[in-house]
Parts: sequence; structure tokens; C-alpha cells
Amino acid sequence: MRFFSDNAAAAHPKVIEAIAASNRLDTAYDGDAWSGRLDGAFSELFETEVRAFWVATGTAANCLGLAALCPPYRAILCHRDAHIEVDEAGAPGFFTGGAKLVLLDGPGAKVTPTMAAAACEAIRDDVHQVQPAVISLTNATEYGLVYRAAEVGALGELAKARGLRLHMDGARFANALATTGETPADVTWRAGVDVLSFGFTKNGGLNAEALILFRTELADEIAVRRKRAGHLASKGRMFAAQILAMLENDLWLGNAQAANSAAQTIGGAAGDRLIYPVEANEIFVRATAAEADALRAKGFDFYDWGPDEIRFVTSWDQGGEPLEQLAAAIAAL
Amino acid sequence: MRFFSDNAAAAHPKVIEAIAASNRLDTAYDGDAWSGRLDGAFSELFETEVRAFWVATGTAANCLGLAALCPPYRAILCHRDAHIEVDEAGAPGFFTGGAKLVLLDGPGAKVTPTMAAAACEAIRDDVHQVQPAVISLTNATEYGLVYRAAEVGALGELAKARGLRLHMDGARFANALATTGETPADVTWRAGVDVLSFGFTKNGGLNAEALILFRTELADEIAVRRKRAGHLASKGRMFAAQILAMLENDLWLGNAQAANSAAQTIGGAAGDRLIYPVEANEIFVRATAAEADALRAKGFDFYDWGPDEIRFVTSWDQGGEPLEQLAAAIAAL
Amino acid sequence: MRFFSDNAAAAHPKVIEAIAASNRLDTAYDGDAWSGRLDGAFSELFETEVRAFWVATGTAANCLGLAALCPPYRAILCHRDAHIEVDEAGAPGFFTGGAKLVLLDGPGAKVTPTMAAAACEAIRDDVHQVQPAVISLTNATEYGLVYRAAEVGALGELAKARGLRLHMDGARFANALATTGETPADVTWRAGVDVLSFGFTKNGGLNAEALILFRTELADEIAVRRKRAGHLASKGRMFAAQILAMLENDLWLGNAQAANSAAQTIGGAAGDRLIYPVEANEIFVRATAAEADALRAKGFDFYDWGPDEIRFVTSWDQGGEPLEQLAAAIAAL
Amino acid sequence: MRFFSDNAAAAHPKVIEAIAASNRLDTAYDGDAWSGRLDGAFSELFETEVRAFWVATGTAANCLGLAALCPPYRAILCHRDAHIEVDEAGAPGFFTGGAKLVLLDGPGAKVTPTMAAAACEAIRDDVHQVQPAVISLTNATEYGLVYRAAEVGALGELAKARGLRLHMDGARFANALATTGETPADVTWRAGVDVLSFGFTKNGGLNAEALILFRTELADEIAVRRKRAGHLASKGRMFAAQILAMLENDLWLGNAQAANSAAQTIGGAAGDRLIYPVEANEIFVRATAAEADALRAKGFDFYDWGPDEIRFVTSWDQGGEPLEQLAAAIAAL
Repeated sequence: MRFFSDNAAAAHPKVIEAIAASNRLDTAYDGDAWSGRLDGAFSELFETEVRAFWVATGTAANCLGLAALCPPYRAILCHRDAHIEVDEAGAPGFFTGGAKLVLLDGPGAKVTPTMAAAACEAIRDDVHQVQPAVISLTNATEYGLVYRAAEVGALGELAKARGLRLHMDGARFANALATTGETPADVTWRAGVDVLSFGFTKNGGLNAEALILFRTELADEIAVRRKRAGHLASKGRMFAAQILAMLENDLWLGNAQAANSAAQTIGGAAGDRLIYPVEANEIFVRATAAEADALRAKGFDFYDWGPDEIRFVTSWDQGGEPLEQLAAAIAAL
Repeated sequence: MRFFSDNAAAAHPKVIEAIAASNRLDTAYDGDAWSGRLDGAFSELFETEVRAFWVATGTAANCLGLAALCPPYRAILCHRDAHIEVDEAGAPGFFTGGAKLVLLDGPGAKVTPTMAAAACEAIRDDVHQVQPAVISLTNATEYGLVYRAAEVGALGELAKARGLRLHMDGARFANALATTGETPADVTWRAGVDVLSFGFTKNGGLNAEALILFRTELADEIAVRRKRAGHLASKGRMFAAQILAMLENDLWLGNAQAANSAAQTIGGAAGDRLIYPVEANEIFVRATAAEADALRAKGFDFYDWGPDEIRFVTSWDQGGEPLEQLAAAIAAL
Repeated sequence: MRFFSDNAAAAHPKVIEAIAASNRLDTAYDGDAWSGRLDGAFSELFETEVRAFWVATGTAANCLGLAALCPPYRAILCHRDAHIEVDEAGAPGFFTGGAKLVLLDGPGAKVTPTMAAAACEAIRDDVHQVQPAVISLTNATEYGLVYRAAEVGALGELAKARGLRLHMDGARFANALATTGETPADVTWRAGVDVLSFGFTKNGGLNAEALILFRTELADEIAVRRKRAGHLASKGRMFAAQILAMLENDLWLGNAQAANSAAQTIGGAAGDRLIYPVEANEIFVRATAAEADALRAKGFDFYDWGPDEIRFVTSWDQGGEPLEQLAAAIAAL
Repeated sequence: MRFFSDNAAAAHPKVIEAIAASNRLDTAYDGDAWSGRLDGAFSELFETEVRAFWVATGTAANCLGLAALCPPYRAILCHRDAHIEVDEAGAPGFFTGGAKLVLLDGPGAKVTPTMAAAACEAIRDDVHQVQPAVISLTNATEYGLVYRAAEVGALGELAKARGLRLHMDGARFANALATTGETPADVTWRAGVDVLSFGFTKNGGLNAEALILFRTELADEIAVRRKRAGHLASKGRMFAAQILAMLENDLWLGNAQAANSAAQTIGGAAGDRLIYPVEANEIFVRATAAEADALRAKGFDFYDWGPDEIRFVTSWDQGGEPLEQLAAAIAAL
């Protein structure tokens, strides 16, 4: 059974149904009925007026947002384990035209105000050094930790004080909220977030992410940048339909709860082997190479994260007996 | 009835079925079974070894290919009506890092060796002027004209003689072949084409295009550039599945024949009003504003191309009575 | 004698003296005493508060200015014979990150409001087409024609009405003013110019141009972009010293008057052979290849501009007998 | 007396004389007699055929070279204290089109094969992570340490084994060689260096650096990139003349020896306070804020490097009594 990554799971049947249902002649690009409903749907969810853009990938969502927030000659502060730094092939550099990532340390890939402030302090305020423009955080983090609204708010305060923008990579935003029970509004714009990549693909979507602009004045620029990057699909309704299906009856939240629940099962079995607390749908476990081999021999697939470290990621559709079997196998190590 | 553009039509049912059928856990990105079949399928179709990459849009296919062919400090020769010049929001500049488009004139958006050679001659060979690196042509053109293999071959000869690469925007490649009856191989690599954007979205796909590399040594660079541009979707199998469905039993060719046939019906009705011969699925018709209004009043939708010029585009799913009604209405003008 | 281009002439002795005089330890980059005087000197000359930056080349001055005025996803309107289009190796694309040049026609490389407005009208206002952001004009033009303040003002009005910025490439700004007798202020900011490249190198400088910002709020961005482009020389005082020497006692104007006067001598001799009126220091003359050969045989060097067209450019240091000999030789053709 | 940085010192009188002597009409750009001698002069110095390009700044030299060595989608390994990382305003990102700098640790800003190899090992070989293309080292380093030929050779071996290019930022290349006594050839191309920025500005030049290509096949691309970046000055002879003056009678080496000797005087006085051995012309000294104040009160200027750390840099023209006074003042702390 595959616990390698949630990005490879099947899409939820309702998402496939929605794509099929949207398959009829309509205005091209984002002029169709489905796309036209996105702004309203997300404004309702976030309890404020937002502008929402569908894109096909998280990399596109992140980097379009960053390009609108950071001029080519400035810097983005992020954790050194952030997806934009380690897993997007340098896309931030491409989309921004050469902006710099300034890397922050800290456990669990979490950005803290202390680290961010220290990084800012270390930059001489002159034309020779690249001045910061944006703080980017990932929620849930690449290690499956979540930010509470108060934590984001502290970063928001710092950003405001220093004239920086705040970007949230929410590839697993749903998983984070499923854990904290906080509202989408509280952990984003009320805490100072300017732009959010709201992920659906890892959470039951097929290939659709929403780029949410709390600064609605960026919408025109984002629209142009999306087109210019080849991300304005002509039958865009298929993206909007997926997202709307995910929003309907809070499917996004239900899926995340299911994935998180599965993660808790594994985490519970791992016990002292856990490297980080399980707060979303990722589980990092200490295991020797021999132990990892043993698990694989039983049919479980996962990621070798580092020496004696393995990673499991659960999906919306994982539970039942296979999950119990994995939990038992881990507990038996 | 909507004859505005083929990019807004519904996808073919087999494409939707294929997406649904591919909706199961598999390796992410392009490590899945469907993606793994693309190289082979296109190598067979083109009678030579090619490398094939799925992407979501024609702009992405075109500009990834151009970026691999043209360094940032050189130029791409194309027609001044080419899609890459007028309808891609400057994406070639973005993807290449600032390469220049040198614009060629000529009727019907067709690039001719004469025009291309003249443009090269007009560029002083020094560091002050941007030297050409690529010729890009669109087949079928933005005015619905098609290139025969011999015409492409003449451009290929020119390109070879001048050390240029040859790129073909084949957003309506299927429509072109459906008309000429030539083979995919003859009109591409045998004629000197290095890279082809093979369009499916306008021809019954949902959102999938294939970037075909006849220079297979470019594959590694393209793979990285695709990721870097945010175009490596994590459930890439849905793109590959669409394309494979289109290739199966030559659905791509059948769809194009249907669209072309519908275009012939309209073209036949337009008679002397035709601005260009109808060679693919676009029909450019002389009509006064009053005549256009009259057609719209009867329920037909189309594009106001210019003063007293209107454009119809037919899709794979258009035929039967509505088409006959349009033909009759045009004939009655 | 060389009438090939003013950019190859010797620098004025006072410029060399100024460089030598500035050759002493001071704060690096632009923290020195000479650089510190530039803002004031140009603010006085332009009768308004400006920010002035030295750079080494006209290409750098033009493209740094354009990059601050035009985002990567928008366009710059310029004449198709403009230096930024034909002689800067695509530098605008590099500095802006891929912005597009939209080319205007018209005799003498002059941008007219009619042409500029028509170009704007031809751009559909949507995300598929690149929207204009800047109008760039060259004064004197690449054909040696000058803009009067009223002409610039008409372009300024158009720019204002359409929300565009106005950039002036003043590589031969001095020559233009020497002809019109208008003030620097009248032909620039009072007419709506936002940014000016004020050229000195072609007019007796060694290698120094001034980038003048009438929008002083752009200064911080320009300072960073200059550094980022490798144009913040550590002994910047040598650039500032050159410029200050050129401003002292209006050496810039005197040099331009001398060059223009020499051009009048040649223009007068050319008579009916003139292709354009001689308004600055460039003279375009109809001459067959045989006639050109004859002139060269007498020791005169110049540029073959096109079929039966030759170009002479005069410098601040050209006059006296050699000039009379050239005039006589042309008159004798 | 100013020991702040060598980049602010006066140019050597012979350099100024050479500029003045080159001030006569010649072919523009790099078509003049002085520029034409550079390739030969450096080929002789390096005992192999090289191509040499003048540029105005070290940032331009470094980043033009890096852009030719590293595609936009790959990475440059360098020390985290490297000038290209901390003091060039992100210029590598601008010139390369978004390539990434991967930062290495280690004392004294020295790149070691161990660190470089470890950094390579940490990069997964897939399209999600940015693959390395270049190792860049600075000689002398930003902390005034020098590389012996054998050390560079070890990096060259590593680079070769991994298919990487090797770039040397030689802003203080002369100072390094003045210390080691090794030949220019031994510490560069014989050790695997592909491209060298050979600095003159900090060593008695006015504003001229030489970009030396040991891979001569890069010359055409560099020529275009130099122009495109606005670095092809029209009176380029003034750059070439400076460099030729520095090469004549090994003025470059003599100047560096003088600066290094001055540094030894200071270093000897600092004794146990030295943070790094003095190997070139930079001296890093432990000193409390009060001690620094005391030195400043005596008229000495220098750089506050960090908490309780101050930096002195000596120039070609520093010696004699002021230097002795500084040494005495430091010794007396």
C-alpha cells in the first residue's frame, strides 16, 4: 500500500463527476460559469472579499503569488526546507525574474518571528545586499506541523512592522485547519496573510489549486501573469469545477479530516519513534534501513527521508484494514 | 450556436472516460503508466524516435519548446499574426528570458522562405543586433491555411542553411493533416522541424497538449523547464490519458476531419465572401456590421475579426441541422 | 577623416582633466563628493527636483529607466528604428525581464501621437495581448530629427490619457537642444517626460551618461537595479566628474553646437541629396556606391546606411579644413 | 587615513596616463587598437590562448561569466560569504535569469572539495531539485585567504568528475599571486578554472576588470551578453588602456605586492588579535567597540565587520608613516 505521498492519490469521485458535468460548451479561459463562481465561493469561505484564481499546480500558485509580491531585485524569506526552496526546481527564481530566497533554520520547517527577524537584521540596508520583501510560510509545514492563527499573526505583525508581505503555501492548508479547527479567515488574512496557495490536488482534487488574493488589487497582475506563464487553460471550467466540488459541503475539510485521522493511527503506532508530533497527514518515523526494508517487504511504500528516517503521508482515501496493518507493522518494529 | 472558437468546445466523451479511468493511485508527476506510454505512442505515429511531454496549454507547449531552442539573447522569426506574438501575453519573452520576436509579413499568416530569408538578411551580423535562432510557424495558421510538407521543407532548408531551428505551433496540427492527407512525419521532422506543439485541446481534448521533441537530446532540459514553470502536475496521468485516448484509433484525425468538414459547409455557403480559402476549420468571411448583427440575431455566435470581417471556427462536435442553418443564413446574406 | 559616428570621437580635454582631478581616495560607489553633486546640478539645469544617476553607457541608462517604468508583462511603444529596438542587443528584454517592444512606423524615426495612439488602439484590452506601459522616443532621433517641446507635449498628453509613462532616449539630447534653443525643462518634464537618458559620451564625454528621473520616487529602485546590473562602479567619482565637467559652463551645449554646425556645413553641401533635413549632427545623403567609393578614396569614412544612402555624423571636435574638404567633395559629386 | 576598502583608492598614475593617451578617435566599442591587444596580452600572461573582455565592474565580470556557464535552471555552488552572494545585489540571479546559489560553509570563505561534494550529494538528482552547474570560488577570499594551485586543482578535479564548471572571482587575484608566487596559469586553467574575473580596479585601476575565458568557445556568447547588459562602452579603448597599463612591467603584481606588504605590517602589529592569517591585503582584527573608537579617534578609518571584529584593507598606495602609525596604534591597544 502506498504511503509515499498524497499527491499521487486518486481524486475524489465527486471531483471526477464535476469535471464530467462541466464538459460542455462555454466561454473559454475563465469566462465560464464555473470560474465565475470562484470569487464568491471563496469570499464566503474567508468571510471577506477575495479574488480567487484556479491554476493546475501548487508550484504555479506559489510562484505566481510570489512574483506579484516580490520584485526581481528583492528577497523572500522562507524555511530552508520549504517546498519553494527544495522542490520547485527554482521556480521562484523563474517567476520573479531572479528574486532571492533567504533561508531560515528551525525545527519542523516552521518559520518563527525570531528567525525571520534575525534574518532581516543580518541584511545590511544598502544597495549591495538584497533587501527582503516577503515572508513565505507553509501550512501545514513540510514536516506536517501546523500554524495556529496566533503564530501566523505574530509573523504578520513582524511583516507589517518591516514592510514585508506574507505568503502562505497552503498545499496542505486543509489538513492544517482540520487539526486546529480554526477558521480559514483567522489563520490567513486576519493574521496578516496577503496571498494564499490553497491546495486541493493533495486532498482529493485531480489537478487544481486556488490562488487566493486577500489583496484584491493584485488580481489584474495575477491574471496577466497566469496567462503569460501558460497557465490560463482554455477549458478552465474543469479547474473551477473541481474546486467548487471540493468546497461543496466542505468536502475539502472532510477529506483532510480523513487523512489526518489515518495519520493519527500511524502516529499512535509509531510512538517514541516519531520525529515530529503528527499534526496533519505526514508522519516522520525513526527506522533503520533494516526496519524500513521489513516494512517494504510487507507491501508498504513510503519515502526514505534521511538516514534512519522514513516518511509516511496519508491521503483522504486511506483507512480501513490496510491502514491497520501498517499501524500494526510499525508497532511491531 | 457557438462558432466562436474551437478552444471552448466540449471534450470528446472518450477523453472524459479516459480521465476517469486513469483516476487511481499511481506514481506522481510523470512516473505513471499512462505518461510512460507517450514516447512510444508518438514515436510510432511519427515513424521515428521522439520524446513527448504533456502540458496543459498550447502556450506552455510553445514557449517551453522555444525556450529550449532560443537563448535569451537571440530571436525567433514568426509571422506578425502568430499566436505566440499576438495571443500569449508575451509568454515567449517570459519563458526564454527576453528573447525577441522578429515579425514577418505575408497573407494568411503564412511564413515563407522569402520573407524569412529577407528578415535574416536585414539583421546586421554583429553584437548590436539580435541574431536569429529559430523560425516558428503555425500549422494550420491563424487564418486556417495549411502547410504542405514541401512548404515546411523549404523553410527547413532555409533554417538549416542559416543554422536556425524550426518550431511548429501545431495547435491545429490535426486539422492541417486532415486536409493534406500527408503523414505527421512528412510535415515535421522529415521537413526539418525540431520541435512541435501538438494540440489536442482544440480538437476534443480537455486540457492537454503534447510537446514533441524530434531533437531528443533536448528532453532533459524540457523536463526541468516544465517543472520550473509549474507545469509538472502531480497527477500527470490525467494529461497522458487524454492524449492516449486521442491517439487511439486516430480519434485526433477523425475529430479534425469532422471539424474541417463543418468548415467546408460554411465555406461553401460563404462563396465569394471568403477572405481566405478554407483549408482547416476556420472560416473568415466578409460581412458588414449589419450582416453580422443579422446572423447574431438568428442565434449564431462568432468573432468580429476586423472591419467587415467575421470569423467562424468549427469544432469536432459541430454538424447537423444547426450547421446547415448557419450555412443557409450565410448564403442568404 | 572619420564621420562614422560621434561615439568614437575623442573625449573633450576638460573631461579627461576632470577624471584625473577626481583620482584620489574618496568613498566608494556613489558616496563620493562628485557623485553627491549630481542631483543638485541637474535639478538646477532642469529647474525642478530630479534624481540623477551616472552610468557608463546609453544602453544601461535607457534600459534601467525602462525597467523601472515597465513591468515584465507589459509593452514599450517605440519607433521601429529606435536604438533600443535595433542597436541594443535586446537589452530592454533583458533589463525588464521580457517586456515587449511594440514598433511604430513613420519617417525619420519620429514617434507621433497618431501612430502611438493607433498602436494602442490595435491592442485588445485583455490578458492575451500585451498591454502598453511606456512610450519611448529618441531625441534627436536616429535620423537626426529633433522634437520641439510641443511635439513631446502632445505625446505626453497621450501618455497621460492612457496611463502610460514617457521615456526619452537623449543620447543626442544636447544636439537637439542646441538646435531648438528650448530649455531642458520644456522638452522633458514640462512636456510629460518621466525618465530621460541624458547622453554625454557622444558629445565629448569619455564614458558617462546621466539617467535623470523626473519621478524621483523611482530613485531607490533605480539605485538597486543599477547595482544589480553591474553598473555601480566602485570609483564612481570618475563618471560624476565627467558629467560635472560637461555641465560646467555649458560645455555640453557648446560641444553640441559645434557638432551641429559641422553638420550644417555638410548638409548645405549635400543640398538635394539630403534624405532628411539636418536638425542635429547626423546627415543622411543619397549617393551611389560609386560616389561613396569616390568619397572614401579621398579619405572620408562614413556609414553605408542602405542602398544608395550614406550617413555622416559629426562630433564636437570636427571642423576646419577637413570639414570643408568633405563639404567640397560632396558638393562635387 | 582610510583603510576601509581598496575599491576606493586612487588609480595608479600610469593608469590615468594611459586613459589620457588613449583619448583619440578610433573605432568604437572594442574595435580599437587597445582592445585588440587584450587577447594577446592575456594569452601571453596565462601561457595559453584565452579570450579577454574588459568590463567596468567586478559584478559585471562575475555575472557575465556565470551566465555563460550556468543555465537559468541550474545552480552555482559558492561560499555563503562570497561576494556574488552577499554583495552583488542579486546580480547572479539577474544575469543568469534566475539560477540559484547554493551556499557552502567553512572558515575564511574558502570553498573546499569536501564542502562542495557534500552540497552536491545533498541534491537529489531529479527535476524537482535544482542541479548544480558551476562551482565559484573567490581568490583571494573575502577574508583575505589565498588558494594555492593545488587547492584549486582539487576543486577542478571535483568539478570535472561531476560535470561542473569552475569560476574564479579574482577581484583580488593579483594579491593572491603576490603571496603564493605561483603563476597565473597554474592557479587557473591548469587547475581546471574555466572563467576568471581578473580584477584591476581594487589594485590601481580606475574602473576596469578583465573577464578571462579559458574556454574560448564562450567568447561569442560573452560578447553578446556584455552588449545586452549595457556593458559594451562605445569608447572601450579607455578600459583596455587601463588594463594594458596594469599589465605593462607587471604593474599589477607590483601594486599587489605593495598592498600585501602593508597588510603584513598591520597584521604583524595585530598579533594574537588576528582572526585569520593575513595572506593578501585584508586584515581582520578582534577589537572591542571601545578599541575601535580609540583607533578612529586617531584618524584611522576601517570597517566594523561584526561584533568585536574590524576589518582593514590596504591599497597599492598605502605605506610609509601613516601605515606605521596605524601599526603602532593597533599594537598599543
